[in-house]
Amino acid sequence: MQVVVPFAAETPKTRLESVLSPTERSTVARAMLADVVSAIVETGHEPTVLSTASLADANDPGLAELPASVTVDDRPLTEAVNPQLPTTAGETVAVVMADLALVTPAALERLFAPDADVVIAPGRGGGTNALVVRHPDFRVDYHGASYLDHRRIAREIGASCESVDSYRLSTDVDEPDDLVEVLLHGDGRTAATLAELGFDLETGEGRVSVSRSDRSGGQ
Amino acid sequence: MQVVVPFAAETPKTRLESVLSPTERSTVARAMLADVVSAIVETGHEPTVLSTASLADANDPGLAELPASVTVDDRPLTEAVNPQLPTTAGETVAVVMADLALVTPAALERLFAPDADVVIAPGRGGGTNALVVRHPDFRVDYHGASYLDHRRIAREIGASCESVDSYRLSTDVDEPDDLVEVLLHGDGRTAATLAELGFDLETGEGRVSVSRSDRSGGQ
Repeated sequence: MQVVVPFAAETPKTRLESVLSPTERSTVARAMLADVVSAIVETGHEPTVLSTASLADANDPGLAELPASVTVDDRPLTEAVNPQLPTTAGETVAVVMADLALVTPAALERLFAPDADVVIAPGRGGGTNALVVRHPDFRVDYHGASYLDHRRIAREIGASCESVDSYRLSTDVDEPDDLVEVLLHGDGRTAATLAELGFDLETGEGRVSVSRSDRSGGQ
Repeated sequence: MQVVVPFAAETPKTRLESVLSPTERSTVARAMLADVVSAIVETGHEPTVLSTASLADANDPGLAELPASVTVDDRPLTEAVNPQLPTTAGETVAVVMADLALVTPAALERLFAPDADVVIAPGRGGGTNALVVRHPDFRVDYHGASYLDHRRIAREIGASCESVDSYRLSTDVDEPDDLVEVLLHGDGRTAATLAELGFDLETGEGRVSVSRSDRSGGQ
């Protein structure tokens, strides 16, 4: 199965700007992409990174060895993903977001398992973090509450639709609070990168938060 | 299997005070409890509500018909739960938080399925939203990052430990942002209660939020 991983190569993860410099945000975004691609490869499927720009000039040399093909398409997410989806019956394409830092092969297997025309893993806040499409008429619309929109689109074209109940797939890393989840449950390159950047868990009463040690790195 | 559902009957859900009056918070907390108890009953297991106070003076008459036994224990959570846990080999007790408004029988079945001494469903922010205990020496400690503590405690007593990857079990309703998840994915009493209180989804770019229509209800 083809697994498309959309990736915003330029100015990624702007909602993390209160805790990470632009260079650091790029480093963390590439670590997450590497974790997602690795998990896909472990399931035996073929990842294609759908990037807004070439990854060749990456400041992270590790990405040169990314075990994925790269397609460059600088259009917005919805417009770039739709041409990748099946156009004939019998085809299957999955779309997995590049910021699912907690994804595991087991979580992906649960996404790939249901025998439905459309399978959706919702993100917190109504997004669509991962998707399997087996229906030639299904098209994505990532604006707004895409989880609800994608269910509606499936209904409208008569496609069967299932949701996958996965905390790991629901956790996209967009905001500082999301870093807590990576430090708690991640064991890949993203968690290691955050540790190198000085992030650590801050425990007290209620939900855990992150703290960052004073370092001169960054920028 | 005995399934214990700890419930803070007095001043519940204080972190929702920016969007709900005290009376409304109590109503929502009791709706969530009813949803959790219903899901447990549907799995064929026996719920016991471990409440900090009698539910008899509930302002919600629906709770009088709650299909669960009620044990009153006004001690803090950790101290109240520990005496409920197994003391001999062969016993199994589950502990499921009362604010898991999105819980379904299917999600609970995934919690009950693994054949491990301790099974944990983590909450966002490092909490322990649901737990199955089959080891007579395991005791809980809900302070701080209890997910990490519970894994450590299991290790220390030589108990096998598994985690369950469930978005529904990871979603405890503590803060206004959590109401979004209930409106997106809930179809029980809690979602109906929030709709009655005037809450609706607010879609735009990025994650969905909630809005509340101007009503004269509540305090």
